[in-house]
Amino acid sequence: MFENRRTVHIEWGDCDAAGIVFYPRYFAMFDASTHYLFEAAGWSKAELRRRYDMIGFPMVDTRAKFLIASSFGEDIVIATRVAALRRSSFDIEHRVFKGEALAIEGFETRVWCGPHPDDPKRLKAQPIPPEVARRLSDG
Amino acid sequence: MFENRRTVHIEWGDCDAAGIVFYPRYFAMFDASTHYLFEAAGWSKAELRRRYDMIGFPMVDTRAKFLIASSFGEDIVIATRVAALRRSSFDIEHRVFKGEALAIEGFETRVWCGPHPDDPKRLKAQPIPPEVARRLSDG
Amino acid sequence: MFENRRTVHIEWGDCDAAGIVFYPRYFAMFDASTHYLFEAAGWSKAELRRRYDMIGFPMVDTRAKFLIASSFGEDIVIATRVAALRRSSFDIEHRVFKGEALAIEGFETRVWCGPHPDDPKRLKAQPIPPEVARRLSDG
Amino acid sequence: MFENRRTVHIEWGDCDAAGIVFYPRYFAMFDASTHYLFEAAGWSKAELRRRYDMIGFPMVDTRAKFLIASSFGEDIVIATRVAALRRSSFDIEHRVFKGEALAIEGFETRVWCGPHPDDPKRLKAQPIPPEVARRLSDG
Repeated sequence: MFENRRTVHIEWGDCDAAGIVFYPRYFAMFDASTHYLFEAAGWSKAELRRRYDMIGFPMVDTRAKFLIASSFGEDIVIATRVAALRRSSFDIEHRVFKGEALAIEGFETRVWCGPHPDDPKRLKAQPIPPEVARRLSDG
Repeated sequence: MFENRRTVHIEWGDCDAAGIVFYPRYFAMFDASTHYLFEAAGWSKAELRRRYDMIGFPMVDTRAKFLIASSFGEDIVIATRVAALRRSSFDIEHRVFKGEALAIEGFETRVWCGPHPDDPKRLKAQPIPPEVARRLSDG
Repeated sequence: MFENRRTVHIEWGDCDAAGIVFYPRYFAMFDASTHYLFEAAGWSKAELRRRYDMIGFPMVDTRAKFLIASSFGEDIVIATRVAALRRSSFDIEHRVFKGEALAIEGFETRVWCGPHPDDPKRLKAQPIPPEVARRLSDG
Repeated sequence: MFENRRTVHIEWGDCDAAGIVFYPRYFAMFDASTHYLFEAAGWSKAELRRRYDMIGFPMVDTRAKFLIASSFGEDIVIATRVAALRRSSFDIEHRVFKGEALAIEGFETRVWCGPHPDDPKRLKAQPIPPEVARRLSDG
């Protein structure tokens, strides 16, 4: 499956009074990583919206296991890949590395959504476009 | 001028690695305080939008002077009041107290905006409705 | 097991460009809710540190399932309770309600930590004090 | 005076329900930019702490004027430079550009602090080391 890696520099404001990253910050980094995964696959969210009748891919289930803490000034690498693709939902895995060591395992399930036919302000699950599914399935 | 006070409990996630509130968090608290000021005056933002042809009151200039730091577990009181009302903009003052001591002075200038006549997705400064101006001028 | 409930008002800054709460914010709310659970049980984190040779209870595993979105201006109730107590770790459950409806289910596993005997800057899992375990087990 | 520029990609989580950056996020970006300025000058904060008897440079006064909003997916350039150096405090200016256009002007005053001689947990203003002052004064 398609994977994207990026380096994140831990900033002062990411850390809590124990001097390590406040864990909700990792979820914000993971959310950005999922957006960057789509960009690396070829489409920004804005482009996805223009090309397909989609609005977003809201989170329905997410989990993270924290193995090694990180502190201000350190660099981490977030490796993000598609773990499963279904008709209208998909799973993403984020692995955070400090050097060779696995520091965090993150998981998320999102739903591909477009406007609800009865009310365009509401969301409705829609099939992932074949072109998008094909690209995300590539190694 | 109209004033509203609220107590904020400093949470673990508000603090940085020095054990004190990460100062951008105060601006998030002040933004909420301005919204609570309008609620205390009688209107939530949603109600303002329904009643008047307004969209929001974006920030154009904000400043804060930090006199005393605060730490996890402490309570601060944020006193928020209208400092000046002009045709389509207004100034807000936030004073943060720890007990009797003044801990932070915050200032902001916002513009009352509705949809732009040429493009409803853009904003355009509009006169503050007289009813709103009157209420915010009350002591 | 011991439970604590609190109401959280969704603020403008909690929401993303889709107008719903940016989900990492829920984890920050849950982290605060766990701290408030201990406060409701009788001890702030500062008091826990003074009374026991503890430093903190870092997160090792957390998960959330999102059933109903929330928007700016809404009130949610977060019900937080101890789901399991082991020798030096414990599980917390957070249920978010909008009215009667269950909106989010959150889970977390934390480890009770004190200073490492070889290096006081590092953490080491320690037994949860019996007094704390007893209180958290109460209905 | 010494200047450093960096590009920041506006992420989904930086934006509010109006679809533009929630302004407290800019202050977090500016705080990081000041840290990056020191890194570009030759020292991470950790190195400053090791070399000099310093703890940090807490914010005492900050201001920002917002001229042009930014949205999810856009790139901004933050140009950060030392605007004034005094014995134990210094001013930083941040200018945010979107292409050629100036989008935000930020200002901050920080104090160079080391441990208080009476209580190492408290901070005390200290003279900025000559080597640091010299480097920050360079064009």
